[in-house]
Amino acid sequence: MRCIIASTSTIYGSDYLEYLFPEINRFFNQPKEILFIPYARPGGISHDAYTAKVQKAFQSTNAIVRGIHEYSSPKEAIQKAKFIFTGGGNTFLLVKTLHELGLFNVLKKAITSGTSYLGTSAGSNICGVNMKTTNDMPIVYPPSFECLNILNFNINPHYLDPQANSTHKGETRETRIKEFLQQNKIPVVGLREGSWIEINGKEISLRGELTARIFKTDGEIFEAQPNYTFNF
Amino acid sequence: MRCIIASTSTIYGSDYLEYLFPEINRFFNQPKEILFIPYARPGGISHDAYTAKVQKAFQSTNAIVRGIHEYSSPKEAIQKAKFIFTGGGNTFLLVKTLHELGLFNVLKKAITSGTSYLGTSAGSNICGVNMKTTNDMPIVYPPSFECLNILNFNINPHYLDPQANSTHKGETRETRIKEFLQQNKIPVVGLREGSWIEINGKEISLRGELTARIFKTDGEIFEAQPNYTFNF
Repeated sequence: MRCIIASTSTIYGSDYLEYLFPEINRFFNQPKEILFIPYARPGGISHDAYTAKVQKAFQSTNAIVRGIHEYSSPKEAIQKAKFIFTGGGNTFLLVKTLHELGLFNVLKKAITSGTSYLGTSAGSNICGVNMKTTNDMPIVYPPSFECLNILNFNINPHYLDPQANSTHKGETRETRIKEFLQQNKIPVVGLREGSWIEINGKEISLRGELTARIFKTDGEIFEAQPNYTFNF
Repeated sequence: MRCIIASTSTIYGSDYLEYLFPEINRFFNQPKEILFIPYARPGGISHDAYTAKVQKAFQSTNAIVRGIHEYSSPKEAIQKAKFIFTGGGNTFLLVKTLHELGLFNVLKKAITSGTSYLGTSAGSNICGVNMKTTNDMPIVYPPSFECLNILNFNINPHYLDPQANSTHKGETRETRIKEFLQQNKIPVVGLREGSWIEINGKEISLRGELTARIFKTDGEIFEAQPNYTFNF
């Protein structure tokens, strides 16, 4: 497998995907043709508008971007693709659409057979066992929460540390993940903005300059250093 | 109907339910026996521990609190109750349990027949049309997102305004609610901590000292003043 699974598409003060481009071009050897999956529709934008945004971002590398919605057979599009990118937005919308179109199995088969995969945010959530650690609002009801299970753990993208001086009484991210662990025996990686998980063959590593917060099923919680290798 | 539907159980710098007690005692005429629904399990605590917490809070008013899990027939417990309180926690867990036990219909019938109802956070979310505007993490998969529909709109509890100086790239609450409205024709009331909705007979009003943020299905967004009457 050859994947970059990123917490966010965009970091503060920088353009869409900008911080990731050096790594995308190095790790994937400058992809030339990209199949884009726009189903998560951030802010509710259309598949066309989202695909155009990605096309514009990849102009600097001369890559051609086509949205999966442009194909009569999305399954075939996935089977034939050399590089697949799933963008962020609403994870419920993304997972519902992928289940309804029957694309989870074909996507998993493509990735495990060697098709390069880039995911950001919602597009990263789906690489886990299920989508039960998303931060998104459940604006639609998917037929299942099960996901690709390419990682044998879940990620929580846009991971946020508790704010020391907050007066807000809603749950912190850590509290939410601990509630998840009471109901599920699946480790969770809290991935901060600017971090990504790299799958290179069988090796799964933490990349970027930040630590990640790991929640194990036995209750242990720790900070993994950059380049940490995941072995759950 | 006679309901208090609160954004939060607890406001900053104050004990559990403390800010609401004057209103609970006035509006419900000091309830004496309370049926408590602990299924949302905040922080994953047990039904017993959660019920004990509520019992302790109501000690000052000499009310007797019993958890619905203590009854052999939760349906009958709801039918016989004079006052029902559903506490906060995880909305997915609450809604899953209520659906699995078949309690939504009986709870709706009780409330619309005049049983007093107090809800906080997740216990307030379930008064809306569905749970698609919860902030909670989808740690379990409910058989349906449909809810009590006692309100003909949804609420978003613990409503948070966008932070002016935030460097975080996750979606703001307003962005999430706008995404909901692209998929659902249901108005949303962003209810800030310290606010509650009062149902008194057929009148539905905003209570507390804060404004609430209203998201209408036609795209209009406005701030409703305290004592605003909801007429969607």
